Amino acid sequence: MSADLIIRNARPFGGAVQDLFIRDGRFTAIAGDRPADEIDASGHIALPGFVEAHTHLDKTLIGMDWFENRVGPARNDRILADRKAKRELGIDARRQSARQIAQTLAFGVLSIRSHVDVDTEIGIANILGVIETREAMRDLIDLQIVAFPQSGMLQREGTFELMDEALRAGADVVGGIDPASIERDPVRHLDAIFALADRHGKPVDIHLHEPGDLGAFCLELIIERTRALSLQGQVMVSHAYCLGMLDATRQQALIKSMVDEEIAVMTVGSPSAPALPLRLMREHGVTVASGSDGIQGTWDPFGSGDMLERAKYLAQRNGMANDADLEETARICTSGGARGIGLAGHALDEGCFGDLVLLPARSVAEAVALTPQNRTVIRRGRVVVASGEVLGSMPAHE
Amino acid sequence: MSADLIIRNARPFGGAVQDLFIRDGRFTAIAGDRPADEIDASGHIALPGFVEAHTHLDKTLIGMDWFENRVGPARNDRILADRKAKRELGIDARRQSARQIAQTLAFGVLSIRSHVDVDTEIGIANILGVIETREAMRDLIDLQIVAFPQSGMLQREGTFELMDEALRAGADVVGGIDPASIERDPVRHLDAIFALADRHGKPVDIHLHEPGDLGAFCLELIIERTRALSLQGQVMVSHAYCLGMLDATRQQALIKSMVDEEIAVMTVGSPSAPALPLRLMREHGVTVASGSDGIQGTWDPFGSGDMLERAKYLAQRNGMANDADLEETARICTSGGARGIGLAGHALDEGCFGDLVLLPARSVAEAVALTPQNRTVIRRGRVVVASGEVLGSMPAHE
Repeated sequence: MSADLIIRNARPFGGAVQDLFIRDGRFTAIAGDRPADEIDASGHIALPGFVEAHTHLDKTLIGMDWFENRVGPARNDRILADRKAKRELGIDARRQSARQIAQTLAFGVLSIRSHVDVDTEIGIANILGVIETREAMRDLIDLQIVAFPQSGMLQREGTFELMDEALRAGADVVGGIDPASIERDPVRHLDAIFALADRHGKPVDIHLHEPGDLGAFCLELIIERTRALSLQGQVMVSHAYCLGMLDATRQQALIKSMVDEEIAVMTVGSPSAPALPLRLMREHGVTVASGSDGIQGTWDPFGSGDMLERAKYLAQRNGMANDADLEETARICTSGGARGIGLAGHALDEGCFGDLVLLPARSVAEAVALTPQNRTVIRRGRVVVASGEVLGSMPAHE
Repeated sequence: MSADLIIRNARPFGGAVQDLFIRDGRFTAIAGDRPADEIDASGHIALPGFVEAHTHLDKTLIGMDWFENRVGPARNDRILADRKAKRELGIDARRQSARQIAQTLAFGVLSIRSHVDVDTEIGIANILGVIETREAMRDLIDLQIVAFPQSGMLQREGTFELMDEALRAGADVVGGIDPASIERDPVRHLDAIFALADRHGKPVDIHLHEPGDLGAFCLELIIERTRALSLQGQVMVSHAYCLGMLDATRQQALIKSMVDEEIAVMTVGSPSAPALPLRLMREHGVTVASGSDGIQGTWDPFGSGDMLERAKYLAQRNGMANDADLEETARICTSGGARGIGLAGHALDEGCFGDLVLLPARSVAEAVALTPQNRTVIRRGRVVVASGEVLGSMPAHE
């Protein structure tokens, strides 16, 4: 019962210095007496691997020519521009997803849930491309693929069947999108995606940008269907801006219902969108995950994919500045994300996967505030990034 | 009439590749025939030096022990905690200001306006400390010092006299702070600081966090006094959240009056504070500057002082994503800032100071979105930072 890897002088969550032991890819309590590989963490902070709970791996332009963005600010302009760019730029979902994963691995992102477009123009080609990446990089990353009807499902005939095909082909999660403002028929859209979830025994993740009372109504419909199909713990609502746009009574009632049905919320903490009531949600015990959304794409050119930087964004968006607040946002980007997308064993405890990130910082709050870059990343007991340098070759990358 | 420094293959504002010439610290049109130093910009983008129009050099904890922040979110809690920390941590304004300047020089920040606390506990000691830094670093940076009554002026007897003393000692600008919510007497506060400006012939820069209609009222009082004393082009309002909190008619009327009186606005684009109507302000021709506010201090631990990152924050806060938008925020952090704090000759044109930053990026928009770090910085025709490395020793730093 000896460790394969010993990590000396790490500070889990910024606490006291201790040694960590990993055997057969999982944390174990003791070093044992067999010789093992050792690394010295030199007092760096240890966090579990970062969880990217919401991105679009098939949309990034990393490594491609500069895309001059002339798109207006409306969501629909952006959806149209995005579909046009996909055609014209020839974005290869397999290659681009691998490039983003390679980039974010260096930050310590070890689990990703990615929405991947399904529509009547590209069919399920992007799903198949990202599945290829998932297989090629399975020793580096846990990757969940959401079949995502970006251009609408009811709006474009044949998309429902393509969604079904994507799920049969290996997509892990059923995606949905604004049931009212885009799909124009909230009940039929939600009935359709919950039917897919039921048929395939797969979880649901819905993009819900709908504002205020319209969003609240759609959220109620989601809650009702989660309850009816006993999908507790299987449903995530992404963005959910409406939660930050309601009066206190209605806000609280919705949050309570979401807790009852174990519906998780994903927020990117966008500086230009309504802020979610993170403190209230934490008090009630809502599972909160976070993500980068699309990075360096045709929607906007921002984003590194660094989930520690994302913790900073969440804090700044919510006026959170003290150490306890920043520790909370670091948890959202690690354990919160894991809970949200249904990953078990995501902690630095005995029996959990031997995944961690070592950060040169004096406290978790400092790490969030200043996002130091020369990190060491360990996955299943194997060092995959040493002081910011990715070790070994990156599969599926070019 | 020959150049001292030739910069080959630069792309001013992301345009076509050209050579730039600097003689006697200023841009000149021709190379001449005398031998000159040459550097190759390798197609990097050239921007004028970044302008940090609003920071607090006497408050940063850079290089000091980690400060565990347990402070609540209210502004007054933070002011109290800040004053307590100043006492207990022994923040040395001379040393800390030099440390922040050294850090931000590497980003290409070549002009800074810093508010520096004046109060009845520390007197003008911080002003004198930052003046020492200004003298020691005058070959590296243009530094304007604002005498800033952080803890209130009317509220603490003797502060007005200290402000007067600070201005006589060499502070460049008269600061003010929330005339209603902190000072409890908007007319008397504004009369006092405009009297100081008049007496010393120095410009005014007022922290105005006051919300909504209260802020609008204070802004009207500022506009009236600017007009009465003919201080056009001499007044900046920092933050001015109220501009983002009014109905369209009132918003537009205030903006027009500010343009008439040439009152500039400084916004940091804080993700948790109201967003200013940047597009509307640009249409009307308001001078907009930006700044980092305090970095790594007792208020919050955030901030690098990188004004290119600030351009990104401004864009993100305002939902600006296309290339033209990002170029606009880059201008706010260079020429806008220069205009706002009254610096002449801040461009890459003949006769202007030979100050510039070279950025490895394909477009200005990419530079803003991804904030590349290995920059080359030239001040008055002298290379002070080469590929991210500060050259020479940093005075007054320890």
